Amino acid sequence: MRLGILGVGLIGGSIGLAARRRADAVVCGFDIDPRVRDAALASGAIDTSSEDLAGAVDGADVVFVAAPVGALLESVRGALAAAGPECVVTDVGSTKRVLAEAGADRRFVGGHPLAGAETSGVEHAREDLFDGATWYLTPSGDTTGVLYERLHRLLTTIGARPTAIDAETHDRLMACVSHLPHVLANLLVAQAGALLGGEESEQLPAVGPSFRDATRVAGANSAIWTDIYMSNRDALLEGIDEFAEALALVREALAAGDADAVTDWNERARIDRDALLGSRLAGGPLQELRVSVPNRPGVVAEIALALGRSGVNIADMALSPSQDNSQGVVSLWIRGDAPGARAERLIAELGHPVARA
Amino acid sequence: MRLGILGVGLIGGSIGLAARRRADAVVCGFDIDPRVRDAALASGAIDTSSEDLAGAVDGADVVFVAAPVGALLESVRGALAAAGPECVVTDVGSTKRVLAEAGADRRFVGGHPLAGAETSGVEHAREDLFDGATWYLTPSGDTTGVLYERLHRLLTTIGARPTAIDAETHDRLMACVSHLPHVLANLLVAQAGALLGGEESEQLPAVGPSFRDATRVAGANSAIWTDIYMSNRDALLEGIDEFAEALALVREALAAGDADAVTDWNERARIDRDALLGSRLAGGPLQELRVSVPNRPGVVAEIALALGRSGVNIADMALSPSQDNSQGVVSLWIRGDAPGARAERLIAELGHPVARA
Repeated sequence: MRLGILGVGLIGGSIGLAARRRADAVVCGFDIDPRVRDAALASGAIDTSSEDLAGAVDGADVVFVAAPVGALLESVRGALAAAGPECVVTDVGSTKRVLAEAGADRRFVGGHPLAGAETSGVEHAREDLFDGATWYLTPSGDTTGVLYERLHRLLTTIGARPTAIDAETHDRLMACVSHLPHVLANLLVAQAGALLGGEESEQLPAVGPSFRDATRVAGANSAIWTDIYMSNRDALLEGIDEFAEALALVREALAAGDADAVTDWNERARIDRDALLGSRLAGGPLQELRVSVPNRPGVVAEIALALGRSGVNIADMALSPSQDNSQGVVSLWIRGDAPGARAERLIAELGHPVARA
Repeated sequence: MRLGILGVGLIGGSIGLAARRRADAVVCGFDIDPRVRDAALASGAIDTSSEDLAGAVDGADVVFVAAPVGALLESVRGALAAAGPECVVTDVGSTKRVLAEAGADRRFVGGHPLAGAETSGVEHAREDLFDGATWYLTPSGDTTGVLYERLHRLLTTIGARPTAIDAETHDRLMACVSHLPHVLANLLVAQAGALLGGEESEQLPAVGPSFRDATRVAGANSAIWTDIYMSNRDALLEGIDEFAEALALVREALAAGDADAVTDWNERARIDRDALLGSRLAGGPLQELRVSVPNRPGVVAEIALALGRSGVNIADMALSPSQDNSQGVVSLWIRGDAPGARAERLIAELGHPVARA
């Protein structure tokens, strides 16, 4: 199988590595930056490089467009123009309706792998980047079955879990679970900044774990995020409007002093959270353990080692230090009742206070 | 020094333990639940227990009211009625203006330790719970100096960092950095739940780390949080209104397709986040490292141990697993440039891809 990859950064480079090693593919890569092309060649992400888009697409069975969201549409158009009649063209952009026009081409299938958002650059490309990762595919009614099947099989071979979804639903979903959380985080830090900046005489406060968690993604890389916001702005606007309406309802209950309504609302949120983050995961519901620890080097390692030795895997973890960093609380999420109970016992045996959240 | 503690759960019990061991205090405890009284006695959190409020207050130099927010006002009133003329009475509630009436008594100082929110129950009480923790005090213009000073000194002795703040500012601050983030988390899970619940045929999606972090505190314990929301609702309403206005402005920029305005807004959020969470902390700005790791037992331990051995402390940590739990990204926050660089080198030497965020 011959692959063309347009844009050989983290995602494109990782596709190349995985396809060469796991699917015996022959990969030609194009990147607008010649240094990136050279780095991709040197790292084994591609077999050959091309100085133009058409050269990388020529003769390919599958073309991946891994350009930034802002350059996506133009690159996809170029790929479709250069590709042969039996070549499937796909992309890896975070929003999908922006390519609706391309979707009218029977050779095009939109794609979005949920992986690699944390770093960038071909130097971080890895063969196993997509192992177990959901890879959304947004075929249109025009997509040729045999081309879709070829792409699907290739993605499975490189470790991903291809999942078909229509572009509209995909973008609404991402607006809700990714783009809106970024907007809220930005607003929250701005509000706190204004509150504290306006009172120079006040000591800066201790910031609790809820604020820290809620604002982790605030001010994410503008070079990526402005494009994401703009390309999905109608879905994001709908998400914002829905959010604003719900916020107004809570405001009403609070203003009316309606404690029962506030409790009902909070309890429904607990149920929603459990449904979304807990039970759907394999291996039983997540158990959340909270461990109070002195914040010295080695203490997290000690806990992780004790659990590791006993075969208990930590599904998720968050460490909230005290203001002076002298102690903290480690939240651990363990999948399944029995492993959760075992973890609780092991941690207690280490002498750390532990409680189920 | 004689102490009275009303409510001997996690906070009250920890005050008792610390005051007995570090301040040679004689502590009498009252709790409405006789089993809790017995447990506090057995654990050494108190010297003696009383079957009524007045008995615990009698002869005390300092009285801590550690009742839930909903029962706070009544307990403080009872304590002031029973306390002698030279006894200082304080509380540990999460909101402070609710006790404005009590603040007119020259013996009363409101208080709020930023510790212990993660667990509850006297069985988790610890002598070192308040070590390094900010402990807000909200004296009024009527508070007697000598009584304030006695309380301040006691809190320092048990390890806390007492910080005076007016009740109004305290409550606005908590509305912004704690109560509002809880509201937003609740709304976000409800919105995602509605989006997914309405489409039974859709596969539940992979949820990214931004959603996970933003919703960690969703549906927090209603027994505690309804009281907190209600007791601080006017400050929270102001916070909500300010948030809604800012949300409307972002909506406007998005609706107008104004990419420059969106970029400016996002960049300001980055600056605010750095100012709030980074530079104000001792030891230099936080360095964020992102490490790609296979999600096997022991790998987090291995990293933490390598850093620990080299004297690099992990200020904060978050682990974001892939959907199938086969791999993940560990975000590590390290304080200071030099330790950050050392951590980066150590992790790279372990063979894990690492990048500065």
